[in-house]
This record gives sequence, structure tokens and C-alpha cells, in this order.
Amino acid sequence: MSQLDQKSEAWSALFSEPMSDLVKRYTASVFFDKRLWQADIAGSLAHAAMLAKQGVISATDLADIRRGMEQIRNEIASGAFEWKLDLEDVHLNIEARLTQLVGDAGKRLHTGRSRNDQVATDVRLWLRGEIDLIADLLVGLQKALVGIAEKNVDVVLPGFTHLQVAQPVSFGHHMLAYVEMFARDHERMLDVRRRVNRLPLGAAALAGTTYPLDRESVARELGMEGVCQNSLDAVSDRDFAIEFAAAASLVMVHVSRFSEELILWMSQNFGFIRIADRFTTGSSIMPQKKNPDVPELARGKTGRVVGHLMGLITLMKGQPLAYNKDNQEDKEPLFDTVDTLKDTLRIFAEMIDGITVQPQAMEQAALKGYATATDLADYLVKKGLPFRDAHETVAHAVKAALSHNCDLSELPLAVLQQFHPAIGKDVYDALSLRGSLNARNTLGGTAPAQVRAQIARHKQRLAG
Amino acid sequence: MSQLDQKSEAWSALFSEPMSDLVKRYTASVFFDKRLWQADIAGSLAHAAMLAKQGVISATDLADIRRGMEQIRNEIASGAFEWKLDLEDVHLNIEARLTQLVGDAGKRLHTGRSRNDQVATDVRLWLRGEIDLIADLLVGLQKALVGIAEKNVDVVLPGFTHLQVAQPVSFGHHMLAYVEMFARDHERMLDVRRRVNRLPLGAAALAGTTYPLDRESVARELGMEGVCQNSLDAVSDRDFAIEFAAAASLVMVHVSRFSEELILWMSQNFGFIRIADRFTTGSSIMPQKKNPDVPELARGKTGRVVGHLMGLITLMKGQPLAYNKDNQEDKEPLFDTVDTLKDTLRIFAEMIDGITVQPQAMEQAALKGYATATDLADYLVKKGLPFRDAHETVAHAVKAALSHNCDLSELPLAVLQQFHPAIGKDVYDALSLRGSLNARNTLGGTAPAQVRAQIARHKQRLAG
Amino acid sequence: MSQLDQKSEAWSALFSEPMSDLVKRYTASVFFDKRLWQADIAGSLAHAAMLAKQGVISATDLADIRRGMEQIRNEIASGAFEWKLDLEDVHLNIEARLTQLVGDAGKRLHTGRSRNDQVATDVRLWLRGEIDLIADLLVGLQKALVGIAEKNVDVVLPGFTHLQVAQPVSFGHHMLAYVEMFARDHERMLDVRRRVNRLPLGAAALAGTTYPLDRESVARELGMEGVCQNSLDAVSDRDFAIEFAAAASLVMVHVSRFSEELILWMSQNFGFIRIADRFTTGSSIMPQKKNPDVPELARGKTGRVVGHLMGLITLMKGQPLAYNKDNQEDKEPLFDTVDTLKDTLRIFAEMIDGITVQPQAMEQAALKGYATATDLADYLVKKGLPFRDAHETVAHAVKAALSHNCDLSELPLAVLQQFHPAIGKDVYDALSLRGSLNARNTLGGTAPAQVRAQIARHKQRLAG
Amino acid sequence: MSQLDQKSEAWSALFSEPMSDLVKRYTASVFFDKRLWQADIAGSLAHAAMLAKQGVISATDLADIRRGMEQIRNEIASGAFEWKLDLEDVHLNIEARLTQLVGDAGKRLHTGRSRNDQVATDVRLWLRGEIDLIADLLVGLQKALVGIAEKNVDVVLPGFTHLQVAQPVSFGHHMLAYVEMFARDHERMLDVRRRVNRLPLGAAALAGTTYPLDRESVARELGMEGVCQNSLDAVSDRDFAIEFAAAASLVMVHVSRFSEELILWMSQNFGFIRIADRFTTGSSIMPQKKNPDVPELARGKTGRVVGHLMGLITLMKGQPLAYNKDNQEDKEPLFDTVDTLKDTLRIFAEMIDGITVQPQAMEQAALKGYATATDLADYLVKKGLPFRDAHETVAHAVKAALSHNCDLSELPLAVLQQFHPAIGKDVYDALSLRGSLNARNTLGGTAPAQVRAQIARHKQRLAG
Repeated sequence: MSQLDQKSEAWSALFSEPMSDLVKRYTASVFFDKRLWQADIAGSLAHAAMLAKQGVISATDLADIRRGMEQIRNEIASGAFEWKLDLEDVHLNIEARLTQLVGDAGKRLHTGRSRNDQVATDVRLWLRGEIDLIADLLVGLQKALVGIAEKNVDVVLPGFTHLQVAQPVSFGHHMLAYVEMFARDHERMLDVRRRVNRLPLGAAALAGTTYPLDRESVARELGMEGVCQNSLDAVSDRDFAIEFAAAASLVMVHVSRFSEELILWMSQNFGFIRIADRFTTGSSIMPQKKNPDVPELARGKTGRVVGHLMGLITLMKGQPLAYNKDNQEDKEPLFDTVDTLKDTLRIFAEMIDGITVQPQAMEQAALKGYATATDLADYLVKKGLPFRDAHETVAHAVKAALSHNCDLSELPLAVLQQFHPAIGKDVYDALSLRGSLNARNTLGGTAPAQVRAQIARHKQRLAG
Repeated sequence: MSQLDQKSEAWSALFSEPMSDLVKRYTASVFFDKRLWQADIAGSLAHAAMLAKQGVISATDLADIRRGMEQIRNEIASGAFEWKLDLEDVHLNIEARLTQLVGDAGKRLHTGRSRNDQVATDVRLWLRGEIDLIADLLVGLQKALVGIAEKNVDVVLPGFTHLQVAQPVSFGHHMLAYVEMFARDHERMLDVRRRVNRLPLGAAALAGTTYPLDRESVARELGMEGVCQNSLDAVSDRDFAIEFAAAASLVMVHVSRFSEELILWMSQNFGFIRIADRFTTGSSIMPQKKNPDVPELARGKTGRVVGHLMGLITLMKGQPLAYNKDNQEDKEPLFDTVDTLKDTLRIFAEMIDGITVQPQAMEQAALKGYATATDLADYLVKKGLPFRDAHETVAHAVKAALSHNCDLSELPLAVLQQFHPAIGKDVYDALSLRGSLNARNTLGGTAPAQVRAQIARHKQRLAG
Repeated sequence: MSQLDQKSEAWSALFSEPMSDLVKRYTASVFFDKRLWQADIAGSLAHAAMLAKQGVISATDLADIRRGMEQIRNEIASGAFEWKLDLEDVHLNIEARLTQLVGDAGKRLHTGRSRNDQVATDVRLWLRGEIDLIADLLVGLQKALVGIAEKNVDVVLPGFTHLQVAQPVSFGHHMLAYVEMFARDHERMLDVRRRVNRLPLGAAALAGTTYPLDRESVARELGMEGVCQNSLDAVSDRDFAIEFAAAASLVMVHVSRFSEELILWMSQNFGFIRIADRFTTGSSIMPQKKNPDVPELARGKTGRVVGHLMGLITLMKGQPLAYNKDNQEDKEPLFDTVDTLKDTLRIFAEMIDGITVQPQAMEQAALKGYATATDLADYLVKKGLPFRDAHETVAHAVKAALSHNCDLSELPLAVLQQFHPAIGKDVYDALSLRGSLNARNTLGGTAPAQVRAQIARHKQRLAG
Repeated sequence: MSQLDQKSEAWSALFSEPMSDLVKRYTASVFFDKRLWQADIAGSLAHAAMLAKQGVISATDLADIRRGMEQIRNEIASGAFEWKLDLEDVHLNIEARLTQLVGDAGKRLHTGRSRNDQVATDVRLWLRGEIDLIADLLVGLQKALVGIAEKNVDVVLPGFTHLQVAQPVSFGHHMLAYVEMFARDHERMLDVRRRVNRLPLGAAALAGTTYPLDRESVARELGMEGVCQNSLDAVSDRDFAIEFAAAASLVMVHVSRFSEELILWMSQNFGFIRIADRFTTGSSIMPQKKNPDVPELARGKTGRVVGHLMGLITLMKGQPLAYNKDNQEDKEPLFDTVDTLKDTLRIFAEMIDGITVQPQAMEQAALKGYATATDLADYLVKKGLPFRDAHETVAHAVKAALSHNCDLSELPLAVLQQFHPAIGKDVYDALSLRGSLNARNTLGGTAPAQVRAQIARHKQRLAG
């Protein structure tokens, strides 16, 4: 009778009593790690093929394993597979079933590997696939943002610093700021992927194996970029999980900033945008409400992902080599981080299509805050004043305008000239929102010409 | 037709389109918040009784509501209740079913409240109950620790600082250090409970209500210690969740420290304890292994709980008043924190019964590290040397013992007297492990007499 | 020659070489822990008095120690004291100087204690004092908030949920929500204080001491509420630091929420408040800017304090008993947390005096968002409709008002009656902002009468 | 009179009162950001050169600015520079002094830029330099590890999983596991560097500038890899700080794991290594102690760095665009993270030279735990058993050896053959530590041949 059949009894002949039920439930992972089944089977098949090639198992064994795995795949996909708590995790569940189906060949599959290198391989394979999906979703979100930017290049938004009106910006330009953020996120995800995509299999429990494995062929078979070069590191390394969670946290920080702005802009005092009803909810008590639930919830979910990052770092802190059971705790935070990211990125890309921009509200807001005061200072610099002096001159002009309760552009020329004699009639071009916008025409600036150039760049970049 | 029947259509007449399916799934909470169903029904019944008492609803309405809720209770308990994603959360699911069962009385239940105060009330009621369970488990764990301490008062363990042998301590004394930690945890949980156990209900959406509610009678009915005194705070406060997560994190920090020691002590180089087979696991590859999976996993789960604390703080940071949808994200971390704590405390109390102490291994280890060197210094102080000088004298003696590869107690008197002439024959009492132990006989010290006194104190304290 | 004079040479005769300079700098704490000097001297004096009472040191020794400490106090206060890196920390610096000043009596001071219990005692004494200052500052901030609330009970602010206009609230009521938060913070700080204010001294290195100490008299002398009952726990416990940092994080979460609102309210699109110029800054480039730097920076400092909490938990995770050098890392985060809290609470209390409320802007904003829609629903309920039906009726009315671009209160009676025949002329009372406010007249509600009652309660509570 | 002279008075004519002293201290950053002075001057000089090339300022202005900056450099380097709190930050301090020295040219320097893009540029320039230093230190640490590995390839260490003896490994192999970790850290730092090394300058306050800047020439001049392509993103992005802190946290996680092992190995029950006295400390009370303070403190400092990461993420969560004062809080955590990393990496590289390996203690420990049990299973597999069956057979053999209190290799052949008849005399090769080591001879395995190949690879890689 094999060890696996006895799992519900005791671990091995060494154990005088079976695991307590409480312990079984506390330590079992099958109810969450069964999500790894495809990676587990893929890893096993690559391992088996290599074992056969190296003469460690026979061609018949390999054929049996392939046949068994094919059936298991179908059983799991169809929901017919019976997952057993007693078999602890996804690996033993699949291996026990395989042995049931194909006998000794199934028992031989575990030759030259251990669950320590097996689980590390499974998680990496799975995460690599998820990173690819996330990278695609990041591209999709960028495209949606470029799309709304393109439609609103000429819409003037009050740019804020310190949430005080600062200078007019193109709404399209503002959207492209988020494109930059999500583009960096994409870049980071690909950096992470390189370090995820290395093969631990063959490290066995911790020290390597006595079988003549060809690890590099397994890596090639699985599309990995190389093998982990040190067996102890291979089974104990969880850098890739932390690194992924850190990159994911940055994605969510960006989502939280965008959400904050959407929520602000939908608030009645701003009224800069509307979000389509299908993305909002009402109130059980206040009949007039339309609430921006999606961005609020997304902002809240930042906490969840950051929490997972913190949890993973705490998990690894101070662990001696090599594998410790603590590491089993890497999975749930990773799974939830991936789910949160995918759901959030998908819904945001869709929601952007449901945003209606209110250009008039934006322009009015820009006019409230002396958004073109800097332009007046720049105007004076061009007339020869040092910037610092121009700045002070404009402060006086703003003070006057405030006391008249009007915009700078509404002050008569004679009044403006009291602040500085160099001011001429052309000052009113500088003081208009559009004049201000057009004037910021250097690389990265908000001038519509620049924004259009950036849009063209992004479209080409994202077309691939 | 009522609003609830239309939920799958649209929020209210104000909405021109139904919620998108993606949004429905993203924002729905029913699949995790249904866990609150008992608190939700208890809160609703107390609210309804008060509404009737205040004449807001009729006695017939109240009777209908009670009858309906009774049936719903049975349906949920038996698994017959059909939870609907379209009805978003536990509150609307129960209310919709109530209205189906009892008609207009069900619709009147929501008078004078909002989901904002309702959910806050539910979470507090639920958490109060869980805190009580956790407090009991903390008592149980302390009792188990006092039990093992009592059996091992006279067992000598090398006490470590910097993981270097420092001074001999009683194994019982060492166990009681953890009793102190879990006693503080218990104290903190009760502090948190006081702030959890306040009633938000009646704050309605955010501003209070126009109905003549008697909030204090609802609080009494629900066993709460008072009402939240400000409606805006009532619906937006999540301090209690963060405070609970912080207290829970400390519990897990203590668990992680205890786990670290159990793992060390089970390691072959220590060999201080054995843990019963039912709490250990084997290896799929190494036939000789018995691994302390439970303490390892518990140590790892510290990360999970700390992560939830971080997530909850991040969630609340910078939220404007009053209720925002972000807050829905408070539930899953709370639920998982509670589950982790309860499982871990329960399994640790059980596992302590499975620990077998190896006194000889401990004594041998204590002899390796010159654990009684301080006793020699204290001996010299009693002979009149200033402590600082005695310390240096002993350093020389230890150096000599090291070069002879023996313990201080194995040096002949003549040799010891070379370091200081005041040393007499009685020095060997001071240099024995038990002599050292007995000598630390002040309050809180490791002398068996002190340890027994502490055990008596704890037993009385925990007897309640 | 004593150990202390040789510190720059080597630790003791056991050490064959002096500490490397790099290590000295890496491990020294004197440049930050010298802040503990007053606590260190206070603890030493209490310890010395007890040693004398117990006959461990002579009356002359005690007199010498007191005289020496008096001089050291003066030297440190005047800046004349020479802190030496070679003497590692505040404890050795003071003790070395004492020995220089009074000879052997100084060397005898360390009898029956260790740096492990000494540093734990110092930090607790210091933190207790800081908690008292923080508690006072929390009272001061509450008073300032009650003050501004009292002046603005009748000012109508649009209450928000989801940052959408929800219902009108009293500005005073809104301020009192923060009073509740800071009152809870005060409560929590006092809970923490109880656990901080226990005496580790007498635990010595880890196991207690061989001298006949009277620990309880030292505790009384130092105003502590009891002694740590287990020596191992006494030297290794840092719960109090984590607990304090958690309470501090909640203070900062509240500060961040208040800051977020101040920043929003100062933004031109809200314009609800002005903050006095002395609390704002300008821009080096935009002459029109007045930025709310203080609340922004305070919001940012939340991260700092939360980071310290996470750092402290990470620090303690998985540490075996008893004292480990890791613990030295508890100080800088504690110090910085205390400084941040004190500075922030002080500046906020001052800044509240510099806030000018703009009641007109608030009322206008409240009118924009159908803030009294719930009042119309409540009105219909009083006419006999179930709440859920009233809610839907009002949604239709709001839709009509939106299409007329007017408030509900601006719809003619005939139009309103189309939505429900029960609507009468008195509906206009319900639809006014002030009518709405006054109607929410239950405990904790926003009705001015309730707000005034709360103010009276807070004033009495804070008068102590 | 210029704005800068008036800073101690008021921000500009718009301000009716000067900043309060409390606010000045709360918001000033000069006492920590003066560390950026070299980057600030470098950025200013590159900006000035470009302004001159573009004709925005005159050649004379540029010459004046260069002369003034040269003097300021000397003043700061020599300590003669007077830093003023009133001038808030490093930027205004330097600019004010420049204007004092060279008049109007100094005032013209700020043309086309703002403090928002200036500070972002300074931090990036400074951090790029620090990353280069850290990368060098990571190489140095790897070299030290490769050095000790090379000397100890043939030393047998018991490899642990779950801190239970698992399989014998080469001590050199174990050291190389850390080389892998620090190599990944190095790789990550270079990934971060790419995103740090982009130029925000020219984004001005938030929207770009009206001056005809050539941003790409400034980027080239400063050795940057490109310009930030969106002005709003340029001034508000702090991804690079978070990303750096995440990479730094991983470095510290690795340091904490290595520290944990060094502390364990130095503990008397292991006794695997000694650390030179210059890296250890004694005890003020226990004369026999030599404590591994450096690894303990380093393990503790993990918390500090992780705390900074959490602080920075919290800081950025939910911030609306573009620049907010919150961002000033990015500096202290960055500075402290850099200092901690540099100090820790430097001291670890040095300390490795001070490690003395105790091969006998390691071998003895390996013999205690049936480290070659897997080899027996593998031996049986080679005789034709399925691995799972061999595993169970060996469990019986271990049980027997346990009852005889001997190692597997000490069981007579006849006894071994009772467990399986296929066992022959050659089994004793498999059961020896060195036999086991040599047998794990696949890529990444612990066989000395593999370890030597890895050492050669690392030496070549690190030679650059």
C-alpha cells in the first residue's frame, strides 16, 4: 500500500498517530491551491517527458502519465474531480488520482522532485500567465485613456496643485498623465515577469537530486527563461511574489489617485464629469443619489493589495533557509492580488467609455482661480523683468482683482498698467485660458499640439 | 412595484439603465457579508420593536416582521434561503425576502434607518460576539500554558539573550512569560470591546432621522453600552475595526514568538521538546522528517493578520466624511482576521498538551554556555566588590574555563581563587544551575518559589 | 581599571580585539537615546534608594549617587555633558560619568539590574510622560473643535456620502464628529498608558536577580501602577510600543480625514472655508496661490506614523525570548511618532482658530444636490406610504426637477401633487434646508437643539 | 525688493500676515533636504546652460550663475554656508544666496521651472547616485560571500527544511544561495534606476512652461535616459521612491534571513560558526556573553525599511493630481532607507571576513538527523522501486535506527536488508554525508563539482 493511500491515516511508518482533524484543516491548502491545477499538470508533464528522455522512467511510464493526466484534466475541467482535504494540497490530490488511474507510473512521477520545488514551479507558472493577462489589461486601460484624451484635447480643465487652481490644462493632457503611470506599471510587470519565469524544478527538497535530470530542457519546454541556479534558493525564494505584490500596489496607488479625481469631479461642486448610470448606484434612503461606487470601491481596494504586500514581506522576514511551512501562506494574498487587479483594470477600462465630460463646468472653474496669473508673470519676464520680480508684481494685480471680484482678464488695461508700465494690449492673449494652454508648447507641456503628439506616440506604442 | 423588486433593473426612476453585470459583481458583497445574517436580523428586530413602541409602526406590523424574520432565520439556518447577487448585500437580501413574506410591514422596517447605520450596527454586533469567543480562547490558551508550566517548574532551561546562553531559567517560568503576553492580549480585547459595543443605529444615512426614535432603548435591547453620539461619526467610523486588527496583530506577534521557539526547540540541535505526531507532518521526499507545521504556519499567518491591519488603515486614510463605498472593504479583512485568530488560538491550546519536555537536553545546553557566570559575579559583589569589577574578574575566569574546555563549576577552588582571593568553597553552590535558579528569588524572578506563586495567581485569575 | 573605562578598548577580558569602528557606529544608540536621560536618571535614583533601603548599598553610596546624578543633570541640561560614542548608549554614558564623579558608589548602582531591564524602564517612563502630553493636546484640539462648532451650530453644510450631496447638516455637527474621534483617541491613549506604566526594573538581564530587591517600592516611587510579573517578559516585551503606535496611527487617520476635508473646502470649487494666511504658503511660480500646506503635510505624515507601526510589528515578529539586540530599533520610530503627533495636534488646535467659515457657499452647495429629497420621502411616509414606495415616488420628482433645472422646493405644488396626491402645502417646510435640519432631532442627529446639547456635554467632559 | 528677501515676512503681496513660527517649523524641510545640495546645484547649472543656449538668459547671466554656484559649492562643502529655516528648503536657500552673490542673474535662474519640477529632479539625481553606490555594495557583498563559499565548498552543513535536518549540503552551496538573492537585488536596483533616471525638469509647476526650453539637452547633460513625457505626471510621480523602497525591503528581507541563520549558527546549541570579536558585544551583567549584535540589529532594521515602504505607499494613496505638499514627506524615509542599506551592506561584507567556520560541529549535527534517509530511498528507486514505496520502506528503517539510537549508516547490512532484500553493501556509500553530497550533481545541486562551477560563474559575472 502506498503512502498516498494512507494519508488519512498517518504520514509514514514513523508516525504513531494520524494528524488531528484540527491540524488537517489548519494546514491543508487544497481549497485554495487547487487553482494551480493547470500549472501543476503542465509542470508534471514536462518533468515526466524529461525523466523519460533521460532514461529515468520508461516510455511506457510516460505514456501512462500522459494518459492519466489527460483524464484528470477533463475531470477537473468538468467538475467531476473529487478534491480531498485528506490529501492536503493540489499536488497530492492530482498525484493520488494519477496513481489510482495508472498505477506505478504515477508513483514514479515524483522521482527527482519534491513538493518544495514543485509548488514553487507551479506558482511561478501560474503567476507568469496572470502577469500576461494583467499586462494586456494595462494596455487596454491605456488605450481607453488615450481614447478619451483624444476626444478632449481642446477641453480646458483647471489644473490643480494643492487642490488649488493652478494653471489651465488640457483634459486630454490630464488623462495622458495616467497613461504614463499605467505604462510604467506595464514596464514593471515585465521586469517582474523576467524574475518569475525561472525554473526551480530539479532543486528537489533543497539540495538537488541524485537523478540525472536535464533541468534546462524542462525550462525550455515550459517556456521559462532559465533555471534557478541554486537549489536552496530555488525552494525558499519568494522574492517574485513580493516583487509582484509591490508592482501591483503601485497599480492600485495609481487607480486610487484616478478614483479620487473621478469622485471629486462627479461631486456637485465640481460637476466636471458624469459617469453612466450603469457604473453608479443609488441609496436605500436618499432618492436623489447617484454614487460613484466603482471608483470608491477601487480606492478602497488599494488597502487590500497593500495589505497583501505587507503580509508577504512579514511572512518572509527572518526565515532561515530552506523551505519552511510558513511559505504556504504566500498563495492566498497572491491569488487575491491577481483577482483584484484583473477585476479593477477591466472595470476601469469599461468605465472610461461611460464618462461624459462637462467642458463648461471645467472652464468656469478654471476662471475662478486666477489660473493665468503665471502667464502674466511670464509676460512680464518677456518684457525684461527677472522672474522673481514679475511674480511679486502679479501678486499685487491678483490682490486688486480679488478686491474687484473679477478675473485678471477682466481688469482694464489702465488698471493692469498701474502694476507695471510695460504691460500692453497683447496681455489679454496671455490672460486667456486658451492662450495660456497654447503657450505651454514644450515637450511634455499641455499645449494641444504637444498633447496630440503624445497621443500619436502612445497609439503607436500600444498598437503592437 | 417596489424598489427592491427592480433592483435587477435599475436603482430608481432616476437611473436610465441597469447596473452593468461587471459592476454588479465588483460591488456586490452578499457572498461574504451574508455571514452577518444573525446580527442583521437581531438589529432589525430591536429596531422594529422600538419603532412599534414609539408608534412609528403598528403592533401588527411588528408581529408580521417578527413572524417573517423567524421564517427567514429558519431558511438561512437550513440552507434553504436563496441569496441573490442582484440584491447586492445581506441587508437587501433579507429585507426583500421579508417583504415577499409579509408585504408592507417589511417595507416599513427600513423607516428611520439607512444601510449606512445598519451595516455599521451589524458589523459591531457580530464583532462583539467574536471578541467574546476570542477572549475565551485566550483564557483557554493561558490555562494550557499554566498547566504545562506547573508540570515543569523545576525543569532547568538555558535562558537566552541574543540567542546566546545567558542564565538558567525554569521552563515553567518561560511558559509563564507567554501567559503574561496572552493576558495582555485579553485585556486589550476587552478594551476594544468597549468601543465596539456602541450603537450607530439611528444615525440613518448620515444626519440622524426625522422619526422619533428611542436609540437608547435599542442599545439596551442589543446589550450595547451606549449609542454613538454623532450621526456623521456613527456611519463613517471604522476605528473599532482597525483597533481590533491591531490587537489581533499583537496576538499573532506573540504566537509568532512562541512558534519560533517551538521550532527551535524541536530542531535536532536543541532537542528540548517533542511535539506529538498528530501535530506534525512528514515529507513527500525525505522519509525521516517530522516537521512542526503548525507553529510554522502560525508564524506565517502573522503576516496575514498584519497585512489586514495595514489594509484597513490604508482604507481609511484620507476619507472625507461621511460614508463612502470604500468602507465595504472593511469586512473581508475583519472576517479573515477573526477566523485566523480563532483557529490559531484553538490549535495552540490543543498542541500544548502534545508537547513533551526533554529536561536532560535542556540542562546539557545550559551547561554549555557558562550560564552561571553572573552568579559568580554576584557572589563577588556579596564579598564586597563593586559589580563592575566583579564582572571583569569573572570574564577572566570564563576565559580560563574556555581554555580548559570546562564549566566554571569544574574549575578547582585554587584556580578560581587566582581570580579573586575572596572566593571560598561555597562558590560551588552559586555555580550550580539549581543554585542559580533558587537565588533569583525576587518578585518576577525565576526561582521555583516565585514561579509557583505566579502559577497560583494565574490559576485564581483564570478560574472565573 | 573598570570595564567602563575600557569600553573603547574591548568589552571584557574575554574579547581579543576592540569593536570595529564600523560596528561601533552601527550599534551605538547614544545619539538618539540620549533623549531618555531624564527617565534614566529618575529610574537610577529610585533603584538606588531601594538598594539602600534594602541594605544592598550603604547610605553613603546613596548620598554619593544622588550628588553625582544632580551634577550630571545640570551638565546635561546646560549642554556641558560630553556624550561619547564609545560608551554606546545613554545608560553607559551616564553611569561612566557617575563613576568618574563619585567612584565606587557609581559602580555599585548597577547592582541587581541589567541594561535590559533598565532600557525597558527608561522607555516606559519616557513614553508615559509623552502620552500625558499627547492626551493634553488631544483635549486642547477637542476644545478648539467644540469652540468652532459652537460658533457655527446654525450654519448649514451639505452633508456628503460618496462625496455626493446627501442631506443638510449643521457645520457644528460636522465638527463634533471629529470631537468624537479625538475623544476616542484620548480614551485609547489612557488604555495604552495603563499597560505602559508597569515596571520591568528588577528583571535584570532576563531571570530576575539574586539581590533582595523590593520592586514594588520602586514602582510606587516612580508612580507606576505595578511591576511586570515575569522577568523574561519584562525585558522582551515591546507590546506597549506597538500599542502606542497603533493608537497614534488612528490619531493620524483622523487627522488625515479632517485634512482631506479642509483641503477640499478650501478648493475654489467648494470655497466653504478660508484658512488664515499664517497657515498657508504661496508658490514660487504661481503668484495667485494660497496653499493649505499644513493639512496637506499632516495628511502626508499619516504615512510616516503608519510606517512606524508596521516597522515595529515587523521588528518583533518571530523574535525568540528574551532580549535581542533587534529591540534597540524600537526607539527611533517611537521618538518620531511622538514628535509627529505632538507637532500635528498642536498646530491643528491653533489652525482651527484661523478658519473662517463661508456660510453662503455652503448653503448654495447644499441647494445644488437635492439635499432634502429624503425629507420628501419621510413626509410621504408620515402620510402613510411605506418607505420603499415613498423613495421611488421621490426619485420621479427629482427626475422632473432635474429636467426643469430647479430644486424640489421650487416645483409648484400642483406639479408635486402629480407624484402623489397626499402632498400638501406644508411640504415646503420639509423641503427647506433649515426645516430638514430641525427635523433630525433625535439623539446624535444634526438638529441644532441636539448639537447644542452635545456641545454642552463635551464642554463639561473637557472641563476637568 | 524680491520675494526671497521677504520670505521671513510673507509669501507675497497677497498674504496679509507672515507664516506662523509653528507652521514654519512644521513645513520647513531645509534641515533634512539640504542633503540634496549637490543635485540641486547640478540641476540648476544644467538648466541655466540650456536657458542660455536657447537665448532665454544671456551669456553673462550664465557666467554669473556659474560663478555664484561655484562659490556656494565651496561654502557648503566647507561648512560656511548659513542654512536658514526662513528660506524653507534647500532650493530657496541656494537661490537666495545666489541672488545675494550675483544679483538679477540669480533671479533669472528660476525662469521656466518651478520648485515642483526642481525638487523631483533633485531627488531623482540624488537617488540615482545612491543606487549606484548600493549596487556597488551589493557586488562587494556577493564577492565576500563567493569568497567564503570558495573556502568551504567541501564543508558539510546539515541542510534544513522546517528547521529539521533534511539533507547534507555544502557550506559553500549554502552561501551561494545568498549570492543568488543579492544578485537579484542588484538586478532589481538597475531596473529601478532606469525609471529613476528620467528628467522632470521643464514640467514647471504642473503644465509645462511658456519658455522655449530644450528639455532633452538638459537630460543629456545630466546623464539621464530621457525626459518625463507628461508635465502633470512629472511633478506628481513618486513611483520611483516606492519602487526603490520595495527593492530595498527585499534586500533587507534577505539580510534578515542571513542574520537569522548567523544568530542560530552562533548559538551554543549549533556552534557552527564564530564571528570575530570586533563584530560582537558583551553584556553589562553577564560576563560570559559574546552577542551577535550586528546580525541582530540588521534583522531589526528590516522593520525600519519595510516601515518606510508602507509609509510611502500610504503617502501617495488617493492623492489627486498634480503636486501636493504631502509629497514633501517622501524625503526622510528615502534618506533613511538609503543610509540603512549602505551601512548594512558595508558591515555585512566586512563581517563575512570575520566568520570562522566550525566544520566538525556541522558534520556532527548532520549525523543527528538522518540526513541521508532520502539517499536510501533514491538507492531503492535505482533498484526498481517506485519512489513512493521506497519512501515508506525507509521510514521503517529510520524507525528502527531511532529505536537503536544510531544513524542509518550504523545499522548492519543484515538489518537493512530486512527492510528490503535489494539492499547491498554499496548502500553505505549512499548513506555517507559525502556520498550524499556528491550524488546531487545536477545543475544547481549541492555536489562540490556543481558548487565550484557556480563559483566560477559568479566570479566571472562579478569581475566587471
